[in-house]
Amino acid sequence: MKNENILKHKTKIHKEDRENLLKQKGCVLWFTGLSGSGKSTIASKIEYNLHKMEKLTYLMDGDNIRLGLNIDLDFSPESRNENIRRIGEVSLLFADCGIITLVSFISPYRAMRNSVREKIGQSFIEIFVKADINICRQRDPKGLYLKADKGEIDEFTGISAPYEEPLKPEIVLDTEKMSVDESVEKVIDYLKKGYFI
Amino acid sequence: MKNENILKHKTKIHKEDRENLLKQKGCVLWFTGLSGSGKSTIASKIEYNLHKMEKLTYLMDGDNIRLGLNIDLDFSPESRNENIRRIGEVSLLFADCGIITLVSFISPYRAMRNSVREKIGQSFIEIFVKADINICRQRDPKGLYLKADKGEIDEFTGISAPYEEPLKPEIVLDTEKMSVDESVEKVIDYLKKGYFI
Repeated sequence: MKNENILKHKTKIHKEDRENLLKQKGCVLWFTGLSGSGKSTIASKIEYNLHKMEKLTYLMDGDNIRLGLNIDLDFSPESRNENIRRIGEVSLLFADCGIITLVSFISPYRAMRNSVREKIGQSFIEIFVKADINICRQRDPKGLYLKADKGEIDEFTGISAPYEEPLKPEIVLDTEKMSVDESVEKVIDYLKKGYFI
Repeated sequence: MKNENILKHKTKIHKEDRENLLKQKGCVLWFTGLSGSGKSTIASKIEYNLHKMEKLTYLMDGDNIRLGLNIDLDFSPESRNENIRRIGEVSLLFADCGIITLVSFISPYRAMRNSVREKIGQSFIEIFVKADINICRQRDPKGLYLKADKGEIDEFTGISAPYEEPLKPEIVLDTEKMSVDESVEKVIDYLKKGYFI
């Protein structure tokens, strides 16, 4: 190639360049909590509201990850760890691209969430979507608790597999007391105060 | 949650919504070719030029993938396939986010590239960065051919592992004849003609 000696450093585009273009800061909103706690409902509404504010977001959940990137993984502890490791790595790439990245997975193990936190650093925002398991069981939007109680689902978090609550999450959303709109507002306020948007 | 019955379909943000926000179409520019063919140099310059045009791009290469998401994989045929499968899945997410996604990997196996093509569909743009292996060996920007010729690297594409040229790539960049700038222009013209930008 005739021009091969172009200085790579001078032409490299960095996270800050993309953030300046988008007028926002890339980050990871990591929603953790039991099945039925409200993670996906709240994350979807935040995505919708941020889009109305002309912010670029991306939502990762079971629908687009479990059937794609992580289709080779099951629900054993090892696979759950690898599931979260990969989601952590991909959300790091999205944040590096300048995107407000919403991740909605039960992610039951504290150690795995902390290892994602260490990898992502300051841009990692852990959001504990909190509701008692009996409330989640009553809501049971996907009918999963019913199946788990009958023993039809192995390793179901909160029943036959552990859920480890975050010790120091950036945000707690107590969905027994807060409405979806109140939860959404709390997260968007956090993003404003942290100059992410 | 008080407002749990929000209709999900009405609040979902789709690829087209993000593309309208960004004023571009999400796609995957998949650069394939031998080590030393010029993939990364050309991809970097395209990223730089598109950024100057206020387009949002993301470049995936060994630097941010092999040391992150795919750190568990080696260079055996099985791992190479899994490497490309995961990169394909992640680039699909980026394209779905509306981003012009540049993927720069040797990706030597035709079957794997075709399986990524099938998954991504119309947004997949295969770019064959073409140069004879003897030219690549002369360039040897990372000193890898020297090591491979000494037998210090196993499974080195073109020497001890196969490279299968694309049969019907969307774009061919013959870097023995074209300068970096000519190659960059050809790709950007393609994006313009396809209304990606």
